Amino acid sequence: MIEFQTTPGSYRHWRLSFEDSVATLSMDVDPDSTLFEGYQLKLNSYDLGVDIELYDAVQRLRFEHPEIKTVILDSALEKVFCAGANIRMLGGAAHAHKVNFCKFTNETRNAIEDASENSKQRYMCAIRGTAAGGGYELALATDYILMADDGNSAVSLPEVPLLAVLPGTGGLTRVVDKRKVRRDRADVFCTIEEGVRGPRAVDWRLVDEVVRGSKFDAAVQERALEMAASSDRPAQAGGVELTQLVKEVRENSLHYEYVEVSIDRGSRVATVIVRAPDSAVPADSGVEEAVGQGAGFWPLAACRQLDDAILHLRFNELEAGTLIFKTEGNADIVQAYDDIISNNQGHWLMREIALYWRRTLKRVDLTSRSTLAYVEPGSCFTGMLAELLFSVDRSYMLDGQFEDEALPAATIRLTESNFGSYPMSNGITRLQTRFLGEPETEDLCRATIGKPLDAMACDELGLVTYIPDFIDWDDETRLLIEERASFSADCLTGMEANLRFAGPETMETKIFGRLTAWQNWIFQRPNAVGAEGALQLYGSGARPNYDLKRV
Amino acid sequence: MIEFQTTPGSYRHWRLSFEDSVATLSMDVDPDSTLFEGYQLKLNSYDLGVDIELYDAVQRLRFEHPEIKTVILDSALEKVFCAGANIRMLGGAAHAHKVNFCKFTNETRNAIEDASENSKQRYMCAIRGTAAGGGYELALATDYILMADDGNSAVSLPEVPLLAVLPGTGGLTRVVDKRKVRRDRADVFCTIEEGVRGPRAVDWRLVDEVVRGSKFDAAVQERALEMAASSDRPAQAGGVELTQLVKEVRENSLHYEYVEVSIDRGSRVATVIVRAPDSAVPADSGVEEAVGQGAGFWPLAACRQLDDAILHLRFNELEAGTLIFKTEGNADIVQAYDDIISNNQGHWLMREIALYWRRTLKRVDLTSRSTLAYVEPGSCFTGMLAELLFSVDRSYMLDGQFEDEALPAATIRLTESNFGSYPMSNGITRLQTRFLGEPETEDLCRATIGKPLDAMACDELGLVTYIPDFIDWDDETRLLIEERASFSADCLTGMEANLRFAGPETMETKIFGRLTAWQNWIFQRPNAVGAEGALQLYGSGARPNYDLKRV
Repeated sequence: MIEFQTTPGSYRHWRLSFEDSVATLSMDVDPDSTLFEGYQLKLNSYDLGVDIELYDAVQRLRFEHPEIKTVILDSALEKVFCAGANIRMLGGAAHAHKVNFCKFTNETRNAIEDASENSKQRYMCAIRGTAAGGGYELALATDYILMADDGNSAVSLPEVPLLAVLPGTGGLTRVVDKRKVRRDRADVFCTIEEGVRGPRAVDWRLVDEVVRGSKFDAAVQERALEMAASSDRPAQAGGVELTQLVKEVRENSLHYEYVEVSIDRGSRVATVIVRAPDSAVPADSGVEEAVGQGAGFWPLAACRQLDDAILHLRFNELEAGTLIFKTEGNADIVQAYDDIISNNQGHWLMREIALYWRRTLKRVDLTSRSTLAYVEPGSCFTGMLAELLFSVDRSYMLDGQFEDEALPAATIRLTESNFGSYPMSNGITRLQTRFLGEPETEDLCRATIGKPLDAMACDELGLVTYIPDFIDWDDETRLLIEERASFSADCLTGMEANLRFAGPETMETKIFGRLTAWQNWIFQRPNAVGAEGALQLYGSGARPNYDLKRV
Repeated sequence: MIEFQTTPGSYRHWRLSFEDSVATLSMDVDPDSTLFEGYQLKLNSYDLGVDIELYDAVQRLRFEHPEIKTVILDSALEKVFCAGANIRMLGGAAHAHKVNFCKFTNETRNAIEDASENSKQRYMCAIRGTAAGGGYELALATDYILMADDGNSAVSLPEVPLLAVLPGTGGLTRVVDKRKVRRDRADVFCTIEEGVRGPRAVDWRLVDEVVRGSKFDAAVQERALEMAASSDRPAQAGGVELTQLVKEVRENSLHYEYVEVSIDRGSRVATVIVRAPDSAVPADSGVEEAVGQGAGFWPLAACRQLDDAILHLRFNELEAGTLIFKTEGNADIVQAYDDIISNNQGHWLMREIALYWRRTLKRVDLTSRSTLAYVEPGSCFTGMLAELLFSVDRSYMLDGQFEDEALPAATIRLTESNFGSYPMSNGITRLQTRFLGEPETEDLCRATIGKPLDAMACDELGLVTYIPDFIDWDDETRLLIEERASFSADCLTGMEANLRFAGPETMETKIFGRLTAWQNWIFQRPNAVGAEGALQLYGSGARPNYDLKRV
């Protein structure tokens, strides 16, 4: 089982240090601390274990260190910044692991960009030595790349010539779309094993600045302080410690305080229930109390648990092809928490929590499983929890009550946050994406903010897919699950990837939609993964034997 | 060898009829006239041969029939509109053919949309019977879908449940992005084998109108005339007959009047030379003379030849992994032709020719081969031919002359048409895409319109990648070709697909970038194409055996 929880005290691959408003996150990969057998993480190459620590560090820097305004990414090694994803690990990994690994590393790099842009905790990269492949892609996720001009330091994307695969963590997209490198230079750059160094790297827009070796450290510090000067993060606020998540993993279930996952292996369905807490934070003292509750504050706690649960399902439950989202609890309480966050976006912690929900909801959108929501009596699809409803492929809402059950009929409640706090990867909200064909419906929805909407109202607005009554509910949902389980898993992945993100495109959707799809294709082709493919033969001294046909 | 030239007189699958301003293009596939062995084209299912005729019809309608303002797409069969791409053909086809087949059919559907939008020859679709898979995708390419409400007529995308592949001709993208069907309904629609009929199809935005059987024909005529009323196409102009292309196919070369292709099988390079004509059309009588020259008018003739050559290379020369584009002739003459077209966009034929170049240049952009341009003495990269230079992955321009050769040093010349006439699939020009990182360069380029730019000037503006002199030319180009040939063919395809289309995204880039990539991936996965995959077992009665792991 792959575990995503860690703490800085147990990091084996990163060193984190702090000086006033600047943190330094140094890559120092322990070659022997690998997630799987059969490879060594030499030259700051990485596997998922290294990236899990990076993800943890990025999260903690945001929540535990409001005073940190600039994060310097660098390397503890002298001649190497980072050699990218470990090739032997990739060569030995199953297709699903390769794909999930790339997705997770992409999400973490997006989280770095999100921290720079929205948390005002800006990342810069100080490259001394070679930044190859995933190493340069990590640098590309930062706002500013400073490279030593020492005849050795270089950036490169050698995947195409060396490994017959694509740079898997957004490199191609970021080169032409973020850094806007001219496409013919990008073509040259992506085919030169040794990469580009010195002033040419600046001239080609691959890095922002090169500095002679002796002046490098001073320049890094100077840029870090310049970046810090533009941040609005509070110098004096105390951080919120992300305490260890309490969870219990059983054979067919996973239990957190507010999130519960149960897996039906026969139907290959995982049901994810998110629960509201029993009591609300008083509106007048909400923010202070939230800070006081720290990691126990429900919106933060529930988000961390949901995030962890989704990652667990992705990596550890590959055959759970359908995820059903449910909620339980009092919608008034959920709305009270949602309002505190929405109404206090000037407060660093409330901003962080909203951004974390945004990232986690995107993680749901991007999960390669069929996703459903069941809206039943006792549920509380309100505010951020209503986003789950708009994230899924289909939603079923019971019209009325179940027989012989006391709970009143379910309602859905929209809040202000459904209209802007949680944009999807495509840059617009889930409701905007949902109603591209009838944008006037968004206004109708906005007029209902705070009001409980019953099944008929939700059906009329188009907020749910179907509203069966108690007579049809069991049959309809059973048939749905059976039907979904009968389809090809790959085909559903492809279909969902194309239906979920209508409307505008962003760098993120390009990375997850286009780049990922091409990479997945290449990860299936003999030229990369066949017995004579480049990924398999790398390091063996043997030359790959390619099928020459262009497709 | 697959041949793309045909004429209405030899159509075996389509019937074309005309009445005043309305043409009807009826699908009537001959089950036995297949391109390959081993299948029958029942129920208006299609293979590439059917689509080659469709492409030809769409082209001829534009050029030969300026008077046609509306095209009705319908079926000659009573109970079936079109059953989509033939499954047995797909099941038996090599991966490269499947991919090339989908690309060509996509391009033809885009050409239909281009005719509607830009040639004002608007397409509508009259569906009586079932429009399944590629059949519905064909309808989706039209501006207006009218369906009979007779209890039988239905639209469907049954690929996912039946075949474990995606609808391969833009269906998923057009459903959510063009027709803006709500994503949960799109999810339902794409998993229902039998599809959707009657008023629900309108309610879900899948078709524009349903009409009771008895009133169907009258409604089709009425809509066709309404659409015709908004067209600016000239009722009285005579068309230009697209006469049979004269070409000579030899073992390692292909010869047209203005285009020549030579293939070096050792280095796996195809060199494509486009030649200017010997004399210009006089500027004052240009348009009349152009109309008089008909299919012989150089810009039209050269474009048809280039189009045919690219298709030939794609389908018949799978191992020619690198295309080198060259031009030969007098730049003044090219500019004179280019100017006639640019300056007379109000004339239907000049508009058609510009649009045809636009589509053909997109076809170059979308060709899965490494593309290079060599700018040598005697070349004429001017106007539409200069676009070739901006389409390719890299360009090499000789700085100065070759030794012992009389031809003066090469120059490049920009014209007005390089700044708007030929947008790429991403909706912006090649120069805008090239200079995303330095948009001010576009203005510098614009200031050079009509001026010959030598290698130094082109290098400074960033119009070419490298400018070796005669001493370095042979070595540099030889190393380039050898290097390119040493890379994995698939990996280059993936890399190029991600580097070529920076900037904005459109429905076209989504179809070719995202949808195609996912489809290619699925076309490699055992769930579709393995011995127990759905595509292989279709029609056998046996149930596919799926790998259940979600990737």
